[in-house]
Amino acid sequence: MMEDDNVNEVRVGVIGLGNMGKGHIGYMLENKVKGLELTAVADKSQAAREWAEQNLPAETTFFTDPYELIASPLIDAVLICTPHYSHPELAIACFEKNKHVLIEKPAGVYTKQIREMNEAAAKSDVVFAIMYNQRTNPLYQKLKELIDSGELGEIRRTNWIITNWFRSQSYYDSGTWRATWGGEGSGVLLNQVIHQLDLWQWTIGMMPKRLRAFCYFGKHRQIEVENEVTAYAEYENGATGIFVTTTAEAPGTNRFEIAGTKGKIVIEDGKLTFSRLRVSEPEFNESFKGGFGSPECWTFEVPIKGEYPDHRGITQNWINAILHNEPLLAPGAEGIKGVMLANAMLLSTWEDNWIELDFDEEHYWNQLKKRIETSNYKEEVIHGV
Amino acid sequence: MMEDDNVNEVRVGVIGLGNMGKGHIGYMLENKVKGLELTAVADKSQAAREWAEQNLPAETTFFTDPYELIASPLIDAVLICTPHYSHPELAIACFEKNKHVLIEKPAGVYTKQIREMNEAAAKSDVVFAIMYNQRTNPLYQKLKELIDSGELGEIRRTNWIITNWFRSQSYYDSGTWRATWGGEGSGVLLNQVIHQLDLWQWTIGMMPKRLRAFCYFGKHRQIEVENEVTAYAEYENGATGIFVTTTAEAPGTNRFEIAGTKGKIVIEDGKLTFSRLRVSEPEFNESFKGGFGSPECWTFEVPIKGEYPDHRGITQNWINAILHNEPLLAPGAEGIKGVMLANAMLLSTWEDNWIELDFDEEHYWNQLKKRIETSNYKEEVIHGV
Repeated sequence: MMEDDNVNEVRVGVIGLGNMGKGHIGYMLENKVKGLELTAVADKSQAAREWAEQNLPAETTFFTDPYELIASPLIDAVLICTPHYSHPELAIACFEKNKHVLIEKPAGVYTKQIREMNEAAAKSDVVFAIMYNQRTNPLYQKLKELIDSGELGEIRRTNWIITNWFRSQSYYDSGTWRATWGGEGSGVLLNQVIHQLDLWQWTIGMMPKRLRAFCYFGKHRQIEVENEVTAYAEYENGATGIFVTTTAEAPGTNRFEIAGTKGKIVIEDGKLTFSRLRVSEPEFNESFKGGFGSPECWTFEVPIKGEYPDHRGITQNWINAILHNEPLLAPGAEGIKGVMLANAMLLSTWEDNWIELDFDEEHYWNQLKKRIETSNYKEEVIHGV
Repeated sequence: MMEDDNVNEVRVGVIGLGNMGKGHIGYMLENKVKGLELTAVADKSQAAREWAEQNLPAETTFFTDPYELIASPLIDAVLICTPHYSHPELAIACFEKNKHVLIEKPAGVYTKQIREMNEAAAKSDVVFAIMYNQRTNPLYQKLKELIDSGELGEIRRTNWIITNWFRSQSYYDSGTWRATWGGEGSGVLLNQVIHQLDLWQWTIGMMPKRLRAFCYFGKHRQIEVENEVTAYAEYENGATGIFVTTTAEAPGTNRFEIAGTKGKIVIEDGKLTFSRLRVSEPEFNESFKGGFGSPECWTFEVPIKGEYPDHRGITQNWINAILHNEPLLAPGAEGIKGVMLANAMLLSTWEDNWIELDFDEEHYWNQLKKRIETSNYKEEVIHGV
């Protein structure tokens, strides 16, 4: 994708020196991403400037204004690690300057802004990826491979209990923007389980057709946003699904069960257990003439091979895509799916009704704006950093 | 409870010689229930009469009319194993004749008839029990004991995946009454998972305040009634719960997870695993001042002691209650709870809305009657055997 075929290094700028930005810079400075050179950073805060002076090489340029970084000839590509609301706006600015983009999750806060970002990306010729680092986990890659290859048959039911994202009140109190409609625009859905929302649809290759969700706002915590969610999903093929999460429970569970016509897979405790039917359920049901029989089933643990390169893996894949046309593991345009699920779950709760996917994005944004207006956190962060 | 304190044997009559009736008679004839003497049976079918002649002692009296058995001076107590709809009507006849009653599950098909039965039982002075045989499972008894004694703290969330009740089309085709509104009045809810619906509320000591359920009727099977259900429950104390079942999935799961303020219990594969917090979640949350910490947790398997006497255990307990005032493990009056949950789940689906517990029982019965009118199965079974 690089204009000059002789280029073998991508000059990257990082916008936002919060925890995530500093984390990415950490492995970049250790030269753990081949073909990447960190040339610039941007952050509006004085503390970030001081941190940069102490921790970055002298040749790394510091910008206060992210748009100056984006326009700078010093960089070919931008890693966006700013607060959620600003991701699409900054990404669009990058596309306009023909800079490659890797955005932190979530892609944005509401689908309207993400669709606009995706449309701008589609018109550009840059590589656009999203930091869905859990897609590099060989456990979920194996699950996706088993499903894609037909080993599980047709999907009948999904069930993810993901309650091990414990967050204390002190965590929420550690930043005024945290768990506010104005600052983050969502709670557990966009901040914690956005990874699982993405994997929920990515591994099975299906988005729900409609869903009914039940969110609690500030349950056992003094916060504005949702921190417990149970969602019921219906898929086009007749399959159904459940997604349960909370940040107020300990020790919590992370168990993903997927039932198909050829058996069942459970991912829990870092293991993938496959209960595989010798003949598929429909085939058995068709031929069996007795009373209480059921298909013969073999249960075994599927070996998981390969390392889990995590965030670094996504960054490397993005660089490889830029330099060598390697297929993206997490294309930026797919970031809308997890946010769409999260938005639908909130909307279903607010309206106490079913939400079809795709719902009216304008309507959702209006509903969210109402909550932003009465939020305890009001900063210009919504319209850029 | 026996009028004559010298009596040390209860003379029992069994109504209904289907699979369940014959099963109970099996262990009775082997003298496995102390203090029980089988003196009479009743069934309207000729085949049952022939079976009785070949399999029962000559001194066992056969009645074609169950009401004659109930009125007979040959019996003190009645075990009712007839089709679901008839349980309350027969039980009420027993109460009127001052005969002790043990009814097979479910207590009935709709709560209106069960409430009437319970009111008649309350006015009588007999021992009234229900065949909730899974209450004799030491696994669930231990769970109840741990919750009752406060080891788990306050309940926060329940989650039961009970999808291992596989039933083939040939099973459903094996009786014209099966899986019809007219014959059974419900599918998986009253026929298979009625045990788990009972245990779901019995072990935690709470019924939901309201619920929202999603039933599928004849999914992957040619039947009238529901065979896949997902239900979301809200409890008075703010806890939430999920209950998922289907008969069309193999190999299926039976996993019951209960989260409380002091940890989490999971029952699966015949084991009870307790993840116990060293300090409770609310206490930790109150005192912790850091960022990403969570309470210290110890996970261990709780030893399960004692045998699982199953159906025989309930029958023995009923006899012991009659002879020695032993407390009932499954009082008949509690049979209404599982049916109330099942009815609420169906009603929630039919009305596509929340159902409060207790809902209007007359309304439910009217909704059910509509389905009976168009059912493929129409027998007088509804109004007695």
